[in-house]
Amino acid sequence: MRVYFATGNEGKFREAEEVLSRYGIEVEMVDLDYPEIQSDSLEEIAVWGVRWCVERLMEPVFVEDSGLFVDALNGFPGPYSAYVFDTIGNEGILKLMEGVEDRSARFLSVVAFCEPGGKPVTFTGEVRGRIAEEERGEEGFGFDPIFVPEGDRRTFAEMGVQEKCKISHRTRALERFAEWLVARRGR
Amino acid sequence: MRVYFATGNEGKFREAEEVLSRYGIEVEMVDLDYPEIQSDSLEEIAVWGVRWCVERLMEPVFVEDSGLFVDALNGFPGPYSAYVFDTIGNEGILKLMEGVEDRSARFLSVVAFCEPGGKPVTFTGEVRGRIAEEERGEEGFGFDPIFVPEGDRRTFAEMGVQEKCKISHRTRALERFAEWLVARRGR
Repeated sequence: MRVYFATGNEGKFREAEEVLSRYGIEVEMVDLDYPEIQSDSLEEIAVWGVRWCVERLMEPVFVEDSGLFVDALNGFPGPYSAYVFDTIGNEGILKLMEGVEDRSARFLSVVAFCEPGGKPVTFTGEVRGRIAEEERGEEGFGFDPIFVPEGDRRTFAEMGVQEKCKISHRTRALERFAEWLVARRGR
Repeated sequence: MRVYFATGNEGKFREAEEVLSRYGIEVEMVDLDYPEIQSDSLEEIAVWGVRWCVERLMEPVFVEDSGLFVDALNGFPGPYSAYVFDTIGNEGILKLMEGVEDRSARFLSVVAFCEPGGKPVTFTGEVRGRIAEEERGEEGFGFDPIFVPEGDRRTFAEMGVQEKCKISHRTRALERFAEWLVARRGR
């Protein structure tokens, strides 16, 4: 079976291709540049986006949205992680966390899938962890240098991309999506 | 003449009514709950929103979006001011500005107007100023306690609402919009 992934991000696409191919699912990239709405819920943003995409593409399509949610900052930067990274960066998050004891945070990813005439379905992946005291590592991108996943002492940016992908929020969401597709096909 | 203001915010509506009535323009509130897209441009957000509104309402309608743009933070929190206020608040902005010399900032407001079958038109209002060293004042809302407009020593929250409205970014954008409506009617 074949599904479309609406994204302009080559890296994300390759990650999805890698995961979905393990389940025998073909994926094609389609750069629809769909609107992302403002909301504090990644689910709402993804569902809105995939509805927009399926109406135009008229093919089975999914979108993916993700963000870093810091507990002590009431979930900030959350759905606006990309914008916050571009403006105040890792440095800004570290400054906001100065003197803050509770450094717990999580990376969240939501995949929303929809078929023509159908209702959107969502799949969530999460990695819990904490905000490091300083930036460490050169791999990955975005907030990777300040995020230490649970059960490890290294930041995401200190791991190789493949090692990070094994435990990443996005991989988990994509795997749940793939399992659902496969189970449905079997019915 | 009569126009619709798509907003769920009573305070904003009363401000608009006060400004537009001075120009003989009737305004009616309509709570369409239109989607706001993610963008670093208030114009793009407002234009997208008003297009959505006019397609559904089929009446002349405007929307208004505003934000605080801090120069030293690359424009942050900008279009996401409401979300940033709800999560890290004035305290968060002050922390990000600790030890920062350039405290210049501006409040920006964009009004986007559209008629059925027409193209959206936008009007901008701006107030330049700086980020205070600490929160001061009880009036207003949002980032008002940390914003000192140019030519004053008080924060917006230390002024009465009426005094603030006289110089506010929103009033300026609304006045430009009203002047345009009146000039157009005269043609």
